[in-house]
Amino acid sequence: MDLTKIKNPTFLKQLNAEELEVLAGEIRQFLIKKLSVTGGHLGANLGVVELTLALHKQFNSPEDKLIFDVGHQSYIHKMLTGRTDQFDTLRQYKGLCGFPKMTESEHDVWETGHSSTSLSAAMGMAIARDMKKDSNYVVPIIGDGALTGGMALEALNHIGHEKKNITVILNDNEMSIAGNVGALHNALGRMRSAGKYNRVKDELEILLKRIPAVGGMIAQTAERVKDSMKYFMVPGMLFEEFGFTYFGPVDGHDFKDLEENIEYAKKTQGPVLVHVITQKGKGYYPAESDKKDKWHGVGPYKIDSGEKIKPANAAPAWSQVVSDTLENIAGQEERLAVITPAMILGSKLDKFQEKYPDRLFDVGIAEQHATTLSAGLATQGMKPFLAIYSTFLQRAYDQLVHDVCRQNLNVAFGIDRAGLVGADGETHQGVFDIAFLRHLPNMVIMMPKDENECQHMVNTAISYNEGPIAVRFPRGNGLGVEMDQELKTLPIGKWEVLKQGTDAVILTFGTTIAMSLAASEYMKKQGIHVEVINARFIKPLDEQMLHDRMRKNIPILTVEEAVLKGGFGSAVLEFAEENRYHPQMKRMGIPDQYIEHGNVKELLEEINLTKEQIVVELKKLLAVSNDEQKRA
Amino acid sequence: MDLTKIKNPTFLKQLNAEELEVLAGEIRQFLIKKLSVTGGHLGANLGVVELTLALHKQFNSPEDKLIFDVGHQSYIHKMLTGRTDQFDTLRQYKGLCGFPKMTESEHDVWETGHSSTSLSAAMGMAIARDMKKDSNYVVPIIGDGALTGGMALEALNHIGHEKKNITVILNDNEMSIAGNVGALHNALGRMRSAGKYNRVKDELEILLKRIPAVGGMIAQTAERVKDSMKYFMVPGMLFEEFGFTYFGPVDGHDFKDLEENIEYAKKTQGPVLVHVITQKGKGYYPAESDKKDKWHGVGPYKIDSGEKIKPANAAPAWSQVVSDTLENIAGQEERLAVITPAMILGSKLDKFQEKYPDRLFDVGIAEQHATTLSAGLATQGMKPFLAIYSTFLQRAYDQLVHDVCRQNLNVAFGIDRAGLVGADGETHQGVFDIAFLRHLPNMVIMMPKDENECQHMVNTAISYNEGPIAVRFPRGNGLGVEMDQELKTLPIGKWEVLKQGTDAVILTFGTTIAMSLAASEYMKKQGIHVEVINARFIKPLDEQMLHDRMRKNIPILTVEEAVLKGGFGSAVLEFAEENRYHPQMKRMGIPDQYIEHGNVKELLEEINLTKEQIVVELKKLLAVSNDEQKRA
Repeated sequence: MDLTKIKNPTFLKQLNAEELEVLAGEIRQFLIKKLSVTGGHLGANLGVVELTLALHKQFNSPEDKLIFDVGHQSYIHKMLTGRTDQFDTLRQYKGLCGFPKMTESEHDVWETGHSSTSLSAAMGMAIARDMKKDSNYVVPIIGDGALTGGMALEALNHIGHEKKNITVILNDNEMSIAGNVGALHNALGRMRSAGKYNRVKDELEILLKRIPAVGGMIAQTAERVKDSMKYFMVPGMLFEEFGFTYFGPVDGHDFKDLEENIEYAKKTQGPVLVHVITQKGKGYYPAESDKKDKWHGVGPYKIDSGEKIKPANAAPAWSQVVSDTLENIAGQEERLAVITPAMILGSKLDKFQEKYPDRLFDVGIAEQHATTLSAGLATQGMKPFLAIYSTFLQRAYDQLVHDVCRQNLNVAFGIDRAGLVGADGETHQGVFDIAFLRHLPNMVIMMPKDENECQHMVNTAISYNEGPIAVRFPRGNGLGVEMDQELKTLPIGKWEVLKQGTDAVILTFGTTIAMSLAASEYMKKQGIHVEVINARFIKPLDEQMLHDRMRKNIPILTVEEAVLKGGFGSAVLEFAEENRYHPQMKRMGIPDQYIEHGNVKELLEEINLTKEQIVVELKKLLAVSNDEQKRA
Repeated sequence: MDLTKIKNPTFLKQLNAEELEVLAGEIRQFLIKKLSVTGGHLGANLGVVELTLALHKQFNSPEDKLIFDVGHQSYIHKMLTGRTDQFDTLRQYKGLCGFPKMTESEHDVWETGHSSTSLSAAMGMAIARDMKKDSNYVVPIIGDGALTGGMALEALNHIGHEKKNITVILNDNEMSIAGNVGALHNALGRMRSAGKYNRVKDELEILLKRIPAVGGMIAQTAERVKDSMKYFMVPGMLFEEFGFTYFGPVDGHDFKDLEENIEYAKKTQGPVLVHVITQKGKGYYPAESDKKDKWHGVGPYKIDSGEKIKPANAAPAWSQVVSDTLENIAGQEERLAVITPAMILGSKLDKFQEKYPDRLFDVGIAEQHATTLSAGLATQGMKPFLAIYSTFLQRAYDQLVHDVCRQNLNVAFGIDRAGLVGADGETHQGVFDIAFLRHLPNMVIMMPKDENECQHMVNTAISYNEGPIAVRFPRGNGLGVEMDQELKTLPIGKWEVLKQGTDAVILTFGTTIAMSLAASEYMKKQGIHVEVINARFIKPLDEQMLHDRMRKNIPILTVEEAVLKGGFGSAVLEFAEENRYHPQMKRMGIPDQYIEHGNVKELLEEINLTKEQIVVELKKLLAVSNDEQKRA
């Protein structure tokens, strides 16, 4: 059929299993083709084609609430809700978002990006439904990886207790984002190997009721016999213990099995969990046979061979530089332990893991635990390095406040994906970490100008013995600079002059250095000499440099790819106030809004964080400054 | 014995059960007496007297790591490690901390205050031990309430998977801080009712080994028979599913039972969970018979009657004002739902719960879930009000960023215990919330000057339809002002002039208003007229007022009981910079350090947040300002 003609999913009600299978095939071909050009989350979506079709057939969206955990697996949902024709713009500026988005469709009832939120959202929606005396279904679709996130477990515990009608779909692809971790995973494995649930449950209940009800201890024992028998018959006892009725395991690529179980689930009162086994990458050989989950999120590729079309930039990825440096340091520093919350591939730690399997700890999607575990290591004199994305560290803010910084422990943080990340959009823009870290006592925050400085910063972080320290670095590839052979340690709180000048000074760091240098170069041609300083320590500030420039009353421009409120520029303002300076000063950075998806260049232009705007701001500052001098 | 003579716990090794019982009695009497004067966490400590003695007898602290989750139950541990003579200073300025504190003793290997961190810390210490090839025990002691916190569940999942030697002591008092919530709690209930573990486990294993090992499906079935039988025999199957060896339930007030099970646990490889049943308040009738957990944290009381000695302040508690207002509003606003993470008593929501049992949702210790559940409610047009302590909201920072603010949902937050809280100390000082909320797009933040304004702010928050909004209020009692009968809504972002003056202006809010007014009064006597503004909206700022004062170049002093970095004062600096003002300005607030326990007045003096210092700073500002005017 012409997939672009689909306006909403109601037509699915009429389709039988064979017709659905044909449609599933067409959807797969569509996705494989489109994503070969745009890139996107291919593996996850190929895994849930049948599941999404079955859900949209069995439920009535948007009255029934389909909530996609993480949300990168919502492409088929987007196709079924009238957005097929927008896939050429997927994850592009002003184009189709790679995650559910309320502004795109009334069928997107909940927005995601980070994992493990769907069960809590579902509970909120179920409570609202019951307060309003409505009767719609609430259907969170959560992966086995996301289920290990603390908030999902909190929700599981609460839902099981409150007995609300919620239909949890556990999308178990035995993988999450590259392998899965934890006892829960092992338990799921046991459920899977227990074979298909034989639906003798009703019969079992009848059987159990025949056990005579007797008083006291014997009744208790009888209860336990019942429980014990249930456990034997029902592979999902873990979930039953949590108060859920368990259905499964269900073959996630078999429409009959899917629909039958969903129908059972719909008829069941109280919280239900349907355990669906899916295969990531299903239907596309390169992705299907991918054991390392390298097809989770992909750039463009050649359909026939599965060969990835590499971007021109041959410089190493920032994550790779960090990982290589860790490997380098691990040889000398026996106390180094590296921790990752389910991001071995994303943080490019696979090589490190191969070389030091006993010193790399993948804790699963569990950022809070990862952070406090690191703190625990540090209390014993170890040197933990927590490799974590900027926006995922948001999950561990209290652990930073309460466990790491308060106890002033030597935990080193490698904050990946700091700054704008581009195509992943709002939920993944790493723009808050400076604002949420800077006010924490004892915390040191660095950002390198290039990958060579990055390796020295990683080394500095691990060598540092005075408390917590973070090096933040952007997504993507470095600049291709030459790498020093010897690792150095940087003096804490010392900045670096990149370009001399006395008419004005730009204080900047990381990704905004290049545009600042270019702006300075441009000004130079007009006879104005603008100093550019690599403010590589965001905390503590280089007070000596600041005193010097402020005493001389040099106009100051701060430029950062991070939120302005409470950011680096504000730190400079605070310094000025504390020391009673009144510099001519302007802060450039990210305004008080969320930044959508698009490529980073487009996004920077949207928010006026460009070389051109730096020039404009410098000129304004200089005009005011000259004006002042004239008056003086 | 003379308890003050105890220097370390080694003497316990020589004591038999009878002697331990005598000692337990003496410790109880000591605590009941001392806490009747100082106040403190009586109930929790009376519950763990025998347990703490047994642990210190069976393990060798500090080589073996005893980690007290939350930590308010560490008083007996403090007594056994040489701090008995300091109990007169408990929770007082420069006195004994109410939580574990590394600077007090080498036996305090981990500091706490917030719940659910102990398992992650234990995992870190266990990894460190194994990397160092040491062989000490790691023994987290965690309550049944704390176990529902997401990070504890994350840790449980990881520990069960990694199979490290960790001896978890589950202190199950069926209560946590006032009742317990969740499926896990129900599961624990089943374990308790299953009666004492009969220690036939070894025999059971032998029995199970007799089932012949056969291939294929039959082997799988046999495995499941084993599992099933285990489940029948072992009440802790839930924990066994998570990969732990379960011992229990153990009578937490029976030394023989305790020691026997701990000895079993010590001999067991891999992670172990010892399920200990204790009774909060054990041995002191008023606390023992307390069903509502009002003896959790207490002020002074009369020992004989258990009567609480009320402080002189008869004004209603801030929490009570908020709760009463919610009750008031609930009558008219059917969409109002109140959410609390295990703090019904602390947030004084018990009366609300009685009146509106279906509109009060206690989700257990689960701040992340509480926040996103509120967001879920808001998507359905409901009006969620999340009652939460400032420092516990830290746990939900990512949920604020990602779920609430990003989706711009109408969630109202009642942020309790904002500002310095006093005796609970470092871990509970609510001084970060402005800094971590202010940079979130769409967020509105208020703080009332008195309880009358507080009720209007609660009403404003619930009436507000433009997105998330928070009202923060302090610990303790209000000012005793008269309450308006009619609830109002405040115009968003509008401040209030409390005292006229044109020589300088103080921008302040909440608890620091009184000292600001006093300082202004003092200056007035010297002929200097200092305006005092109630900056009740911390975000958004009252830009009109700011423009007016800054245009007139009036010196500005900001005063806040919150961290200076990224705080309200910084917001004013940012406003000035954005609008190219250069006011004479000074920010007063909390410096870049953690603030220990003590009464709030003492703490404020320590950090120079006083009327006297306001006067000093005003004079400095005015001197500079006059100087400038002379030069001009």
